[in-house]
Order: sequence, then C-alpha cells, then structure tokens
Amino acid sequence: MYLQPIYSQEVNTTMDQLIYFVMAAEKLKDIYRTGWRLSGVDRPESVADHTFGVVFLSMVLGDYLHLDTEKMMKMAVLHDIIESKLGDIHYESQTYIGEDAISEAGKKAARDLFPEDYLIIWEEFASKNSKEAQIVSACDKIELYLQALRYEKVGYKGVDHFWHNPWNIRDFSPEIQELFEILKAMR
Amino acid sequence: MYLQPIYSQEVNTTMDQLIYFVMAAEKLKDIYRTGWRLSGVDRPESVADHTFGVVFLSMVLGDYLHLDTEKMMKMAVLHDIIESKLGDIHYESQTYIGEDAISEAGKKAARDLFPEDYLIIWEEFASKNSKEAQIVSACDKIELYLQALRYEKVGYKGVDHFWHNPWNIRDFSPEIQELFEILKAMR
Amino acid sequence: MYLQPIYSQEVNTTMDQLIYFVMAAEKLKDIYRTGWRLSGVDRPESVADHTFGVVFLSMVLGDYLHLDTEKMMKMAVLHDIIESKLGDIHYESQTYIGEDAISEAGKKAARDLFPEDYLIIWEEFASKNSKEAQIVSACDKIELYLQALRYEKVGYKGVDHFWHNPWNIRDFSPEIQELFEILKAMR
Amino acid sequence: MYLQPIYSQEVNTTMDQLIYFVMAAEKLKDIYRTGWRLSGVDRPESVADHTFGVVFLSMVLGDYLHLDTEKMMKMAVLHDIIESKLGDIHYESQTYIGEDAISEAGKKAARDLFPEDYLIIWEEFASKNSKEAQIVSACDKIELYLQALRYEKVGYKGVDHFWHNPWNIRDFSPEIQELFEILKAMR
Amino acid sequence: MYLQPIYSQEVNTTMDQLIYFVMAAEKLKDIYRTGWRLSGVDRPESVADHTFGVVFLSMVLGDYLHLDTEKMMKMAVLHDIIESKLGDIHYESQTYIGEDAISEAGKKAARDLFPEDYLIIWEEFASKNSKEAQIVSACDKIELYLQALRYEKVGYKGVDHFWHNPWNIRDFSPEIQELFEILKAMR
Amino acid sequence: MYLQPIYSQEVNTTMDQLIYFVMAAEKLKDIYRTGWRLSGVDRPESVADHTFGVVFLSMVLGDYLHLDTEKMMKMAVLHDIIESKLGDIHYESQTYIGEDAISEAGKKAARDLFPEDYLIIWEEFASKNSKEAQIVSACDKIELYLQALRYEKVGYKGVDHFWHNPWNIRDFSPEIQELFEILKAMR
Repeated sequence: MYLQPIYSQEVNTTMDQLIYFVMAAEKLKDIYRTGWRLSGVDRPESVADHTFGVVFLSMVLGDYLHLDTEKMMKMAVLHDIIESKLGDIHYESQTYIGEDAISEAGKKAARDLFPEDYLIIWEEFASKNSKEAQIVSACDKIELYLQALRYEKVGYKGVDHFWHNPWNIRDFSPEIQELFEILKAMR
Repeated sequence: MYLQPIYSQEVNTTMDQLIYFVMAAEKLKDIYRTGWRLSGVDRPESVADHTFGVVFLSMVLGDYLHLDTEKMMKMAVLHDIIESKLGDIHYESQTYIGEDAISEAGKKAARDLFPEDYLIIWEEFASKNSKEAQIVSACDKIELYLQALRYEKVGYKGVDHFWHNPWNIRDFSPEIQELFEILKAMR
Repeated sequence: MYLQPIYSQEVNTTMDQLIYFVMAAEKLKDIYRTGWRLSGVDRPESVADHTFGVVFLSMVLGDYLHLDTEKMMKMAVLHDIIESKLGDIHYESQTYIGEDAISEAGKKAARDLFPEDYLIIWEEFASKNSKEAQIVSACDKIELYLQALRYEKVGYKGVDHFWHNPWNIRDFSPEIQELFEILKAMR
Repeated sequence: MYLQPIYSQEVNTTMDQLIYFVMAAEKLKDIYRTGWRLSGVDRPESVADHTFGVVFLSMVLGDYLHLDTEKMMKMAVLHDIIESKLGDIHYESQTYIGEDAISEAGKKAARDLFPEDYLIIWEEFASKNSKEAQIVSACDKIELYLQALRYEKVGYKGVDHFWHNPWNIRDFSPEIQELFEILKAMR
Repeated sequence: MYLQPIYSQEVNTTMDQLIYFVMAAEKLKDIYRTGWRLSGVDRPESVADHTFGVVFLSMVLGDYLHLDTEKMMKMAVLHDIIESKLGDIHYESQTYIGEDAISEAGKKAARDLFPEDYLIIWEEFASKNSKEAQIVSACDKIELYLQALRYEKVGYKGVDHFWHNPWNIRDFSPEIQELFEILKAMR
Repeated sequence: MYLQPIYSQEVNTTMDQLIYFVMAAEKLKDIYRTGWRLSGVDRPESVADHTFGVVFLSMVLGDYLHLDTEKMMKMAVLHDIIESKLGDIHYESQTYIGEDAISEAGKKAARDLFPEDYLIIWEEFASKNSKEAQIVSACDKIELYLQALRYEKVGYKGVDHFWHNPWNIRDFSPEIQELFEILKAMR
C-alpha cells in the first residue's frame, strides 16, 4: 500500500518503488558523519554505520524497557534517511541555519522520500511525543558517545568537546542518564 | 532478563551487560566487507553499512509481504554480529575452510555473544526454517547486489563476478527473484 | 585595524587574532566537497583544494581580462571560508533548505568570521554586483568542471550529472562560456 | 619444471603459469592485516607490506646466524601466499574456527597455489621442523612488533594488546627474545 | 600576452593555454605533503591544501604589514607549482640530492610551466631578495607549523621533529618569530 | 660483521644495529608509489608492496632461468631501500633533476644505510653488470606492469601512459619481452 504515491516520474511497478526507496537509504553509506570529520577523524564512520548502532541500541533498550520495540527499530532505521537529501549538517551549522529552517527542510525531504506508513513513524520520532520516540532520540545521542569513546580508545584526541555539549544530553531520562554515566566512566 | 549470563568476568550490572553487547555490535563498523576489498574497492563499506541495508530491506519487505517484521528486523540486525569475533570471511575462503567448520565457529561465537532471547532469533535465522528467516537471508544477498550496482555506477569494474555466483541466488523466492531481475536490468 | 572586534573572548593580542582567523581558514582542509562524495568519489578533494584552484583561476583570468586581480584573489580566497562554520552544503540540500535561509546563515557566519575589511570584499563577492565578483563566481564553477574532468579522466563515472546542471552555468559571460566549451570538448 | 600442474584450465604455456602464480602473490597487496584493522588502524598495512618486512628480517637474520638464507627468504616470501585464497583470518577468529580447520584449509590452498618445489619449502615452514623455519616463524612475529611499535610512535593507542599475547612469543629462541626485549624497551 | 610561448605542441588558442596552465596547478591537489606522510599521517593534506593556507596567510600578513599584498598572494599561489613536475621532495631527500641540483631542477620546471609575467614573480620569490618574498617564504613555514599543531591536536604524535628543525625557522623576521612563539605556546 | 659501521651515534649493540637497519626498510611501507598517485590512484600501493612483488618475481625467474636466486632476491629486497631517505621520485621528476644527481644521491644514501655486504649487492644491482642484476631490474618494470594491469582491471583509467613509456622497456631480454607481451595481451 504505502509504496505508491512517491516516485511518480521514474517508477512503474511496486517493486521499482521499493528499490528506489531502498536506494535512498543506501546513500547513507556514502555520507560521512560531519561532526567527526571536523574533529579530526580522517575517514569517519558513515551515517549508515551510525544508524546501525542506533537500531541495535533501540532494539536492546526497547526490549529491556518493555516498549514497542518494532516501532522503535523502525524509527531508528528511518531517523536519518532525510540526510540522503540534506547531507549531515553538523551541530554548529544548524545553529547558523536555525532549527526551524532545518526542521522544515527535513519535513519536506521526508515527504518526498517516505511512503505514507513510514512517514507517520518518522513524524512521531521527530515530534518526540511518545516514550518510544524519546528513547530512540536518546539512543541517537548514546550511540554518538559510544563512537566517541571508540575513537578516543584508538588515539583520536579531537572529540573531547562532544562530551561537554549540553544540547546532546538535554532530554536524557534516568535510564539513559545511567548509561551515559557508565560511558563517561569508561573514557 | 536476557542480558545476564554472558560477560561473567567483566560485568557487574545489567547496564554494563547492555553496553558490552552493544560494543560487540559497534565493532561491525570496523570490519570492511572482504569481498569488495578483494575485488578492487579501495575503502569498502563496513559490515555495519551492509547490515543497515539488510535491516532496511527486511523492514520494507516484511511489511510488504505481511510477515513478522519485528522478528525480521531483529534477525537482520543480528545476522552478522558474530563477525565481531570471526571477521568477514569471504566466499572463497569459506569454500576452503568448509561450511561445517564455519558454521560451528559461528554458533560458538553466537553463544558467547548473544543474550538468550536474541540467540533464539539468530538460530532461527541461521537455520532458515521460517519464511522470515528465508526472506532476511535473501535480503542479505539482495543488499549485496544493490551495493554491487552502486559500485559499478561510480566506476568500479572488478565486481562483475558477484552477479555470476550461483551460490548467492540459489534460494531466491519468486518475489526476491523479481527484485533481483530489476537490479540486473539496472546495471 | 580590521583584526579587532571578532574573538572578544579568547583573544588578547592582534597576533592572536590573526592566528584565530587563519585557523578558521585552515579548517577548509578538513571539509570534503560533499557533491563529489555523494557522486561516488571515495576521498574527495577538500574545500581548501578547490579554493586553491579558484584563486589560481581568478589570478590568471583577472590578469588576462585586465580586472582588479588583487580583489579577485581575495574574493576567491575568502569565498568559502564560511564553510568552516556551515560545512559544505551541497546543491540538493540547498534546494531543500532554501536559498534565503542558506544566504542568511552565510552572512551571519561571515560577520562572526571576517575582519571588517575582508567582510566588505566577501559581501561584494556574495552580491555579484561587480565584474570581479561575477568572474570569481564563474571561476568557482569552472573549477568544479576542471575537477569533474579530472575525476572522469581517472575512471570515476558518477559525476556526469554536474555537466547537466543548468544552475551551475546560468551566469556565464562569453569568455567563461568559451572556457566551459573547451572543457566540455576535453571530456 | 615446478610451474606445470597447477592451472590446468586457464594456462597453456609456462610463461602463463608464471604470471598466474605471481598474480596470486600480487593479491596480498589488496589484503589489509585484519588484526590492525580491528585494533583501530584506519587503513592498515597490507599483507604484502608485512611480508616484505618478514623477508627483510629473514635475510638479515639468516646471514647473521649463518643459516640457509635463500631458503629462509623463500619461506618468508611464501609464508602468507595462502591468504590470497583465505584472506587474513585474525587470531581471535582462528581460536573460534580451530587450529586444525585453519591448518587444513591452508594446506589445501597451498596445494592449489604452489608449484611443487615451492610447496616443499612452504611445508617445511609450516611444520617448523628446521631451524630456518623456526627463525622465519619468529620473524613473522617480530615484524608484527616492529609495526606495532611504528603505529604506537605515531599515535595509535589500540594495539597494546598485541604485546601481551603469549601466543605470539611462545617459541622465541634466545636471539629472538633479545630482539623482542629491545623492541619492548623502544616503546 | 604572457600566455604564449609555453605549450607549443599541444596548444592552439590562448584559452587552451590558460587551461593547460591551470591544469598544472590542479595537479597540486594530487600530491600529498611527503613530510607528513613519512611522519605517520595516513592521508596527509595535499600541496594544494598547504598552498591555500600560505595564500591566506600572505594575504593577511601583506595587508597587516602594508606590503604589496597582490604580489605576495601571487608568490604564494605560485610557490609550489613546480611540484606538479617535481613532486614534493621532502627535507631529508633534498639534503641528499643537494640544494643546487634541486634549485636547478626547480628553475627548469618553472621555465617550462610559467608564462613570462608569472615567471618573474616566482623568481623574485625564489631569490628572497624582497621583503615580500621573505614574508611569503616565512608564511610557507608558519603554515607548516599551523598544520603540525592541527595534527598534534587530533592525536598524531610523529610530527614533533618539525618543531626542532632549525632550517625551517632560520630566516624568521621579528613579526614572524612572534607568530611562531604563539604557535609553540599553543601546542 | 656487516652490521657495524653505520649508526655510530645511536647504536650500541649489534642487535640494535640490526633493528635500525630493519627500521629503515620498514619505512618503505609508508611511501606511496608516486607514479600511481599522480596518475589518479587515490591510495596507491606502498614501495614495500611493490618490493614484495619484485622479490617474488625475482625468486620465480631466478629459479626458472637457473640463475643465482639468492643474490637476485637480495637485490630485489634492497633495490628501493634508499627511498627511505630519498622518497619515491617519479620518472618526470628524475628527468628534471637529472640522472646523475639522482644516481649520486642514491649512492650516498646507500652508503649511509647499508652494511658492507649488502652495499656490494646493491651496487651490483645498480650497475646492471650481471645477468642477475639485469633480470631483477627487468622484474622491477614487469612488476610495474602487473600492477598497472591490476589497476586497470578494477576501473582506473589514468595509468595508460605507463604502457607507452619506452624508458621502462628499454633493456628487456627476450624472456622478459615475452612476459611483457603476455601482460599487454591481458589488458
């Protein structure tokens, strides 16, 4: 059902639609995480690498906290697909462009990219109005710290500032805060 | 519950267990897909990149075919976690080592890595006894072809042999075969 | 003179100011050109690489066309310094965010980055109201095509679409158009 | 003589056989040393890089210890050629797959790859029954530590565990142990 | 005028000449700075990256010191173009080949590469007989230290020796020495 | 014996000498083959990669042609060690610097690097006065063509010019010429 209205020009069959949707997702492999790049990581992980980590975390935490794990995993898989259109605009850049302009661009890209059913899930994630959306959003940040830790363990010294950005940890629930404290202790 | 018996030596709390399980998953970011590397791709995608693609495909096909999408997404997320122990052993290497030895090593690694509930899901995937397991297994191959296509579109000429490996396409169901034919036509 | 009002918090001396301004420029070495990356170039040139090419072209064309070469070289050196704050937001991303939001963000970043005298030069460039600004702006595009040509000559096949983007060539003067035709003939 | 029985299908002339044998060796350039990769080295040395180091060490130690240097250099050149079939299976992976299965696979690959005369040399190396084989085998490990030292000197922090793996240093003779101690003192 | 005598065989029109001159400059993007590479930087900046930094510094210092900024920027843009012929021959290599042989090769390359007017500027730079040439020459070194600092800040440990090479700082004027002291204090 | 006169300042024991000599060899891993880099190969093989190929070829051809294989393998291992001092100066650069200056620099570097016994072998190689030296010298070129072929097979289009450089093939003996013809036919 949800695979229809999108690619009106190039798409003829439902299978084609599926392929073109997946092709948008595949582009996340090509996008380096800009924040690491600007912090001195020569060849940083891709947005797909990061998304894999967020999906994994969402699965484990969804099950652990007895939430709707399927929805959380879908939110996690979808959460950065819009970057196939927008690229990975890092934190400082967003402060210049403005949260509203970024948010509007994201919504426009999502409407162009997502079949209807997935759009609803992504919008729930973006609004952060459900417990599931909040935890996936926290997983997005926790995954950042897991990777920061991994970069530090192998010798990178330029990612320290991520640990001190209050914007990243502003909405942590107690469980997530506990996780974060353990990660900090592992540095 | 399922986060207990594993890391008996280093782990004290459930949160620690969760972190160590996730850390194993994170290692997939560090493992290049050997098949591409040996086919001339200088800096190939990671196993995490690939897994992201398989999860995405599993989500879309699970919903499309009205299967148990949650289980399929979990199978996809977990399907290569054992490579955090084994590395990515490519097709030719497996023919030398033998399917049985590889399969035994994989089961041993899975038992060391997975909490009980996830072990059950991974074993269902490995046995290919359910429709869900079969489709996720096919997604693993379809994702390979998506990436082969992407490499060819940007100029790599050494990945042609993947399209002619009958082992990759041996168990394709009609839907998957249709997908595969579309991809072939896109070369 | 122009090195004063900027870094009020961290800077004490004029030499310090100079260093911090140069450090912003140095960051361009760390930013990959996103358009190439998304077109399949594994490790693309940096924004600093590109800027070097634009400065060189501006020098040669400024002298050739008997324009104010010094101003043109300064425009070229400065034209992408704002990317040290914004990153390299590629063409498709800009269409989603909107030219106005991007332009506003750029102006804000320029005011934070540039000493007064250089801000005036950058603003002349951004407004495209002088012959010098127009030619440097064209050099920015011609340099893109020089690099596209270079990527194609060594085997990359994914950058074809740049040659067909009318936005890139919209304001070419006759001299520039002649240059562009020669480059096209060299493909 | 020794260049005959191998490539029965594709090979017609002795020169062709030589080329195909060399092509197998060339593939070692494409294989990254997995142990470094999994320890955080972004773009590690190749198996060919490593082999060069082992050949060099074998030459110098063979001459220094008045052994059969020619045989030692041949052992060193050949010692990892089977990885052109098997890839570089790292230490932890080998513990899962089992030394026997790995050893059997290696022998099978060697029989497929090596002309008879070289097979005999490789088998002597693999059996470690001669002083020459033992010293080349130690050079294989010493070269690992030379590279570990080199990575540490330029800032990598994730290769510490190699220095503490008793498996690596189990069979060191007194001369080799002396070399190893000097390397440790250089950290 | 100055675009004539050079490419007598391949070039027919003035525009062609311009393109071939620019193409020589573009090659600087392909040349890694050898000194960093040999000091353990995996994928070092290009000569074009470095040149961009030198041009930027020359602009700022030229204006700051009320010198002929246009000439300085041209010197900086041109100072390493001969490396498109010679490659980047690092310090130790130059001591073996000899300053005279290197200098002669550079002059020959410059005569093959540069239109007359630019040759005069490059020769003034090479002779270091003017204040402008001396400051640009110092900028060449200061930029090296800026980049050394940047590498050290992100974790590279092998570039320490650059700070202790007296050859690099032999001709620093008081302003440049002040700059250098600030950089040293920032390590 | 041959490990004495070299590192008079830093070296106390014979084992130390051995290590420092090997460390010079290890540096070949860090040096990219400049010719490939300038022909558009993003991350080319190292000089150590290349040397491994030359040693392998020298072993096979030495045995095949019933020459002094041990000496040939030593010549091959040693032939580019001077690049640890000089870097890899590519063909065009050598034409500018001059064969004599390059040759003198090489000899000076060899005297600083090599223990006496190895210096004699290297000098025999450099003089090309023996059949062994001539064949190893040809292997140096044949290995270049093997790699050129490998790059072309995976999609690189910029290495064509190597096949047309008469300097590379000037001294080929009939056996080597036959090898070369086979490689050309494989393109």
